[in-house]
Amino acid sequence: MTFYLIGTGRMAQFIATRLLGKGPQCLGIFGRNAEAAAQLAGQLGAPVLKTLSILPQPADAVLLAVSDSAIPFLAQQLPPQQGTVVHFSGTVSLHALLPHEGRAVCWPLYSIGTDIFPEIQIPAGSESSHEKARQTLESLAEALVLRLFDAPEATRRQLHLAAVFGNNFVNHLLCICEKLCREAALPQEVIRPLLAQTFARAISGNPCEMQTGPARRGDLGTQARHLGLLSDHPEWQRVYEAISDSIGHLYPVH
Amino acid sequence: MTFYLIGTGRMAQFIATRLLGKGPQCLGIFGRNAEAAAQLAGQLGAPVLKTLSILPQPADAVLLAVSDSAIPFLAQQLPPQQGTVVHFSGTVSLHALLPHEGRAVCWPLYSIGTDIFPEIQIPAGSESSHEKARQTLESLAEALVLRLFDAPEATRRQLHLAAVFGNNFVNHLLCICEKLCREAALPQEVIRPLLAQTFARAISGNPCEMQTGPARRGDLGTQARHLGLLSDHPEWQRVYEAISDSIGHLYPVH
Repeated sequence: MTFYLIGTGRMAQFIATRLLGKGPQCLGIFGRNAEAAAQLAGQLGAPVLKTLSILPQPADAVLLAVSDSAIPFLAQQLPPQQGTVVHFSGTVSLHALLPHEGRAVCWPLYSIGTDIFPEIQIPAGSESSHEKARQTLESLAEALVLRLFDAPEATRRQLHLAAVFGNNFVNHLLCICEKLCREAALPQEVIRPLLAQTFARAISGNPCEMQTGPARRGDLGTQARHLGLLSDHPEWQRVYEAISDSIGHLYPVH
Repeated sequence: MTFYLIGTGRMAQFIATRLLGKGPQCLGIFGRNAEAAAQLAGQLGAPVLKTLSILPQPADAVLLAVSDSAIPFLAQQLPPQQGTVVHFSGTVSLHALLPHEGRAVCWPLYSIGTDIFPEIQIPAGSESSHEKARQTLESLAEALVLRLFDAPEATRRQLHLAAVFGNNFVNHLLCICEKLCREAALPQEVIRPLLAQTFARAISGNPCEMQTGPARRGDLGTQARHLGLLSDHPEWQRVYEAISDSIGHLYPVH
């Protein structure tokens, strides 16, 4: 299998690192950042491309490892491909890769950074325009150590929303938690073991069955005292009330 | 050091397990559940007490490992102690241990269950009525492998609130996340590696500095689409809005 790699950011570096020494062979690198492109090209033993509008030879895949907004623009710059054009975004549709016939999405559900160990298997939501594109994507995923699962656009949208709750929103609650500790002049270390324990239990089991706390018990006295402690932070009071209401909705107290 | 252990629940079992074979010597066990009391007594090589109103001999500490509401009741049943009376709750005041002169609170910040490895050091918020009580508490904490930090009542209340955000509320968001995955017919497994990665980064660093997502970017279009996807769950919409507002409040987009 042969491929072109477009982009030089974290996703492109992740792809280059994981494909190095595997079966797929890189035919060229393209990127706005000339220095980063030269470095990736050296790493993969492939030439730097000066333009996308003429590619030196056909390839099985063109990998668009670029920002969401650049995907449709770059897809249209490419000459019509016989191989499969692939993007790696959770929020961009398969149509964004038109006019190419072979199109595929490969969205790794992981925060791609420089700290990804090479052989951790990462789940990746996938969609493809036809059978040949699907087969190309599967070969690519095997070399990238990704575990593909079917995720058409509506599924990706829902999963993106789920990730906002599970990641972005969880992170903000941990931020509030840290700030509350700091207000009490306590280092975050005193509460971290408890947070880590609860999180590990919740994701290894079923978090809905493990709910505890004042809202779960319908303990309105404690909730009122907590809202009082938050009087300097009306935006945290609203978070407290909204989540407590949602917990109360899920576990009515009789 | 000598002690009496009152209670037979998870906290009492935790104490018995951690003190077994250490310096402190148990002079007796008291508990409503006769079978559990006999088992703990066997484990610690101590007699079961029939009553609290007469204790066979003085002890350095009386450990009230019982439910919050039982603490003041049992403290009053005890004959006046020369030693230190200790409770293990985050929400009960030191005064609840009156009329005894030597009083101490030792609140382990951990969910105490049967899965606690014997030698994990657990942070514990502490308060004591005087110097002798503090010394007794320190000896006890050393044997229990607890790392004490000063936590007077106002601090414990604030920390309890912080734990509601960091534990109970985080757990509920993970529950919503799981339900959203299920609605998309996806197993929770596809998103767990991402959740675990983000959580590990957040608690090993500073979550406030690691905030990402549509609310952090001020991406109103994505937020409106997400609210649309949640139209069947108005209580989750309110959670989404309250947390997004709170994030927007903390990171104004210029």
